[in-house]
Amino acid sequence: MKAVIISIGDELLKGHRVNTNAPFIARQLGTIGIPVSRIVTCSDDPQSIRDSIISALEESEAVLMTGGLGPTNDDRTRKTVQELFGRGLVFDEPSFERIAELFRRRGRPVTEAMRSQAMVIEGSITVPNTKGTAPGMIVDCAPRFEGRHLVLMPGVPTEMEAMMRLTVIPFFAPLSGSFIRHTPVMTMGIGESQLSGMIAQVENELPPGTMLAYLPHAAGVSLMVSSSGTLREQVDAENRRVVEAIVERARLFVYAVRDVRLEEVVVEMLLEKKMTVAVAESCTGGLLASRLTDVAGSSGCFLQGMVTYSNEAKVAQLGVDPATIEQHGAVSEPVAEQMAQGCLERGGADIAVSTTGIAGPGGGTPEKPVGTICIAVASRSGEGEVTVEASTFTMHGDRQQNKTRFSEAALRGLLVRLKSSAA
Amino acid sequence: MKAVIISIGDELLKGHRVNTNAPFIARQLGTIGIPVSRIVTCSDDPQSIRDSIISALEESEAVLMTGGLGPTNDDRTRKTVQELFGRGLVFDEPSFERIAELFRRRGRPVTEAMRSQAMVIEGSITVPNTKGTAPGMIVDCAPRFEGRHLVLMPGVPTEMEAMMRLTVIPFFAPLSGSFIRHTPVMTMGIGESQLSGMIAQVENELPPGTMLAYLPHAAGVSLMVSSSGTLREQVDAENRRVVEAIVERARLFVYAVRDVRLEEVVVEMLLEKKMTVAVAESCTGGLLASRLTDVAGSSGCFLQGMVTYSNEAKVAQLGVDPATIEQHGAVSEPVAEQMAQGCLERGGADIAVSTTGIAGPGGGTPEKPVGTICIAVASRSGEGEVTVEASTFTMHGDRQQNKTRFSEAALRGLLVRLKSSAA
Repeated sequence: MKAVIISIGDELLKGHRVNTNAPFIARQLGTIGIPVSRIVTCSDDPQSIRDSIISALEESEAVLMTGGLGPTNDDRTRKTVQELFGRGLVFDEPSFERIAELFRRRGRPVTEAMRSQAMVIEGSITVPNTKGTAPGMIVDCAPRFEGRHLVLMPGVPTEMEAMMRLTVIPFFAPLSGSFIRHTPVMTMGIGESQLSGMIAQVENELPPGTMLAYLPHAAGVSLMVSSSGTLREQVDAENRRVVEAIVERARLFVYAVRDVRLEEVVVEMLLEKKMTVAVAESCTGGLLASRLTDVAGSSGCFLQGMVTYSNEAKVAQLGVDPATIEQHGAVSEPVAEQMAQGCLERGGADIAVSTTGIAGPGGGTPEKPVGTICIAVASRSGEGEVTVEASTFTMHGDRQQNKTRFSEAALRGLLVRLKSSAA
Repeated sequence: MKAVIISIGDELLKGHRVNTNAPFIARQLGTIGIPVSRIVTCSDDPQSIRDSIISALEESEAVLMTGGLGPTNDDRTRKTVQELFGRGLVFDEPSFERIAELFRRRGRPVTEAMRSQAMVIEGSITVPNTKGTAPGMIVDCAPRFEGRHLVLMPGVPTEMEAMMRLTVIPFFAPLSGSFIRHTPVMTMGIGESQLSGMIAQVENELPPGTMLAYLPHAAGVSLMVSSSGTLREQVDAENRRVVEAIVERARLFVYAVRDVRLEEVVVEMLLEKKMTVAVAESCTGGLLASRLTDVAGSSGCFLQGMVTYSNEAKVAQLGVDPATIEQHGAVSEPVAEQMAQGCLERGGADIAVSTTGIAGPGGGTPEKPVGTICIAVASRSGEGEVTVEASTFTMHGDRQQNKTRFSEAALRGLLVRLKSSAA
């Protein structure tokens, strides 16, 4: 069994919006062992919708569509499907009740006109919309396409996502004959080619049914190990074996074997060790603090951040010695060390990290080109003694990429120190 | 003339990566009046690549493909296209020189094996790769597909983007018979339905060839006005007329009629007025500072940020009165005001903004639910007198969305004060 995803929307074809619905649907189908053979984006135009549906149904057992449902879209998709299969509409009482209830809660009047939104294609299974108004539908395409199903969902991500989880996946799970296991292996501080060299042997000896994908991102690369087969236990065992072999070879660079961001691992470790953190940022400009505070529960360990962009702020807020800035420049390991130390002491935290560098596009020099970053980590030992250590890296991105990579390097610095700390 | 985009990659079909290449290509083609009729994502498998190419060439004059080119992909796409059209490979000296130069600069040896990367399909136009190794190609598909072109590009976004700008768009521009003008109208602080009501008349009377798209994002909604036709002057005039009519009706909410982020407008205005800014953040956790420092040149106006997550930090760093926190709670207008005022005075800036709120998922109460945000803006008048004003909003997102909306509200507060300030 395989699936085709059809995303409807002129705004997608114009490139004004990135299609995030299709990858979500693909990942969900992946969890029940249904691979996606094609993703098609087509226009709002009925002819284009019809052509896409027919060619998708000729190719696969499950066709999942998003878009063109709901009040502002003139229900174009529903009408096209109706005409294609020669079916009428029937009134769905539970959908109407749900829509009416939503309007009542928002203090808006319930009108007869809303009944049209609660009309579903006859013979289809209604997919309740728990996050909006228009219901989705699972249409059995027999007799023309025997044993094939077409799923209609709205394009609004929150509505579609709830429908997938609550109704569509439970519907297709028993129809799928195979199991898939995906395990992400998250790495930091290593490039694709270097990582690839390190695990070449594992990659060359992958068992049949197991695949390895490299997923490079702004600050490094992660791996996805995917195994599939008809026996759940065998699939799981093979997947685990490959993951273990990779971790063994790339141990120094792997920070997790689950889909988790570096900042989440840092916050988890801080909370576990009951340690508090403070950050002092120059070139990352608040991004480091923002990433840490993105993590729910970070208020349990994150005390404060100082974004000291100007030299004056570094001196006033963090107690950096103006003479050090004068002698080594603001982007230097000695300044990074004083920033981290000042941040630790003034912030009253157990561990502190600082960043000072050149994000670009301006400000580079031959000795310190754009992309140069100095990072320092300061922490207190059990006896209250402060250890500060700085390091320098060079990144090769634009301003935005550099900020991301700088913040990643700082998180990495925190993680390494946390791992080695006794507390 | 129209185009089809084919994105090749199993990682896209599994949903492990979001397809951002296709929207980029679509936007670029839009600038030279070539609409995209379909976007197809297919697997790395040669059969699937071949089927996608043929059905795309049957449908459109230009087919643009990304992925499956380059050393790690076994050049599968190149080989498939070769076989499909029965063409050989020829050595491209300039491409080889470029690859060799790249390796020399990185201090890595130049080997004969690299020659294979510089092989292009015979009779094709080479698309130089200024950001990587494997060159792209524009393949004339005559005689089987007379007057139709297939473009092969790597899937690495930076490489593909440079190819589109430097070679592919200049190649197709003279072949396109029409002009398209897109004008973004950026709004803030207004939802889709409210905005839609405000400009309903304009929308109902759009001239033929002009379309309006709503592009909702985390913090509001923007509009895209797209006009197309065969006469450049007429297209431009109609587009301008619609944009002006929208701006007239939604003046209070429009912050720009170009593709620019709110933080860029804020930084531009600060630099123009020669004013400096400092920020004091609680719930936005550094995101506000990070957004401002995302803007190149922001070091000319951004002095410092303080991320005071804990109450102790609010008192120590910003001079907030503990009694005010005790009496009103940390999330309150009086605390926001003291934060902004403390930030202005301690940061030595001309204008300061503060945020204190509840991003969630925890921390909400019946009186102050998750999503509550208090913002205060403080600025100095010509006589040095400080004006502080606070406001409270409620957002309805998850933690991440709330942080984004909170920071957007703070930027909006800055912009409104800057617009009304005399300086």
